[in-house]
Amino acid sequence: MELFFSREIAAGARELDRQESGHCIKVLRHREGDMIHIVDGSGGLYRCRITKADAGATAFEVEEKIEGYGSHPYRLTMAVAPPKNIDRFEWFCEKATEIGVDEIVPIVGDYSERKVFKGDRCERIIISAAKQSHKGAIPSLGALTPVRGFLTRDFGADTHKYICYCSDVDGAQKIHIRQALATAGDTNDFVVMIGPEGDFSRDEIALALENGWQLISLGDSRLRIETAALTAVAAVYLSR
Amino acid sequence: MELFFSREIAAGARELDRQESGHCIKVLRHREGDMIHIVDGSGGLYRCRITKADAGATAFEVEEKIEGYGSHPYRLTMAVAPPKNIDRFEWFCEKATEIGVDEIVPIVGDYSERKVFKGDRCERIIISAAKQSHKGAIPSLGALTPVRGFLTRDFGADTHKYICYCSDVDGAQKIHIRQALATAGDTNDFVVMIGPEGDFSRDEIALALENGWQLISLGDSRLRIETAALTAVAAVYLSR
Repeated sequence: MELFFSREIAAGARELDRQESGHCIKVLRHREGDMIHIVDGSGGLYRCRITKADAGATAFEVEEKIEGYGSHPYRLTMAVAPPKNIDRFEWFCEKATEIGVDEIVPIVGDYSERKVFKGDRCERIIISAAKQSHKGAIPSLGALTPVRGFLTRDFGADTHKYICYCSDVDGAQKIHIRQALATAGDTNDFVVMIGPEGDFSRDEIALALENGWQLISLGDSRLRIETAALTAVAAVYLSR
Repeated sequence: MELFFSREIAAGARELDRQESGHCIKVLRHREGDMIHIVDGSGGLYRCRITKADAGATAFEVEEKIEGYGSHPYRLTMAVAPPKNIDRFEWFCEKATEIGVDEIVPIVGDYSERKVFKGDRCERIIISAAKQSHKGAIPSLGALTPVRGFLTRDFGADTHKYICYCSDVDGAQKIHIRQALATAGDTNDFVVMIGPEGDFSRDEIALALENGWQLISLGDSRLRIETAALTAVAAVYLSR
């Protein structure tokens, strides 16, 4: 089953955009009267019937709406410092979407090598991965955000805030993500931060501790940024 | 710290091969008397001193050997059906090596689209990932193996044999990999099988059950082959 995407369907739009129309009519050769499935990017799946098979603007009517399609039983924001090689970050976006993530925020810290980030390609990869893995909700991709700004953001009292850090910090407890997730209780809101190759700075970690972030470890393997980030996504996904 | 690789060092070789020598002398510009670190691919790390800085055959003497360098506290074999797009399998090999795997076996089943597999590029990717992530042991890559042959292989009584299957099977219990790992006890030998896009056939699953394989699930997300395989590696890694 192929999914189409229309963010405007929830607001009443009854035409696919040019790109989706072309794919629907020219590539998949759908015809008037065919049933297609459209996701709205917010969790809704719509069973629709094509009323006009136009490769530029395919019209349809909605027969049924299913909520929470392909949803996961947690809410996860991943704040990750994009590596120099942007392919690796794009790969992370694709795989995290497949497994289950809600928001991806590229961050820039004191030791970041990459200080600029263009999200267009990542956005397309996320949409494509969400459709391919049958997620009604498409993860949002934030703008490049300074680590300090992200650390002081208010996520609400029920959100578990984890920050991965390779070193130990005097007087601060660092626990394995497995242990953190096992003791997280019934609230399923998580934010995980993964720093750049040079890790977070001591100042950033001090600010994290002031703001109630839990230091976590992902075990003993030496992981690249994108591998660490995906391991964290898998950890949350597998624990719920 | 850059690692070099010499499988022959354990048997007494005291020269790097042409490729490693070139990298050591031409790229990293090491000179006679420099200390370098060499892994033997079986877990050993050797601290060595260069005695002849030859870009074709760099000679060294061993000053110290460290066993189990970058090792993990489990043994994991991943048997995975390579997808049509081989890049995706290569990506899995790289990431699984970083996280921690011992053996990767490409398999071909009843519903496999890919019936041939050339391992040369994967092998190089695995070696490079192992060096980059500081593993003394380099995962082995098997030859393409029929699913039936793999299912009937004798792994010893203490090995946990898990097979991922998307459907349910009448009369057979399927458990989440989290639960399987939580009840695995103190033996840390695991084999996990991930089938092709069309999954395993009913006959293959019947043979698996006859041979004591445990049906497992990786949760509700619809994962590509390589994502499922990496999620399984992460599950084992995070649980130990």
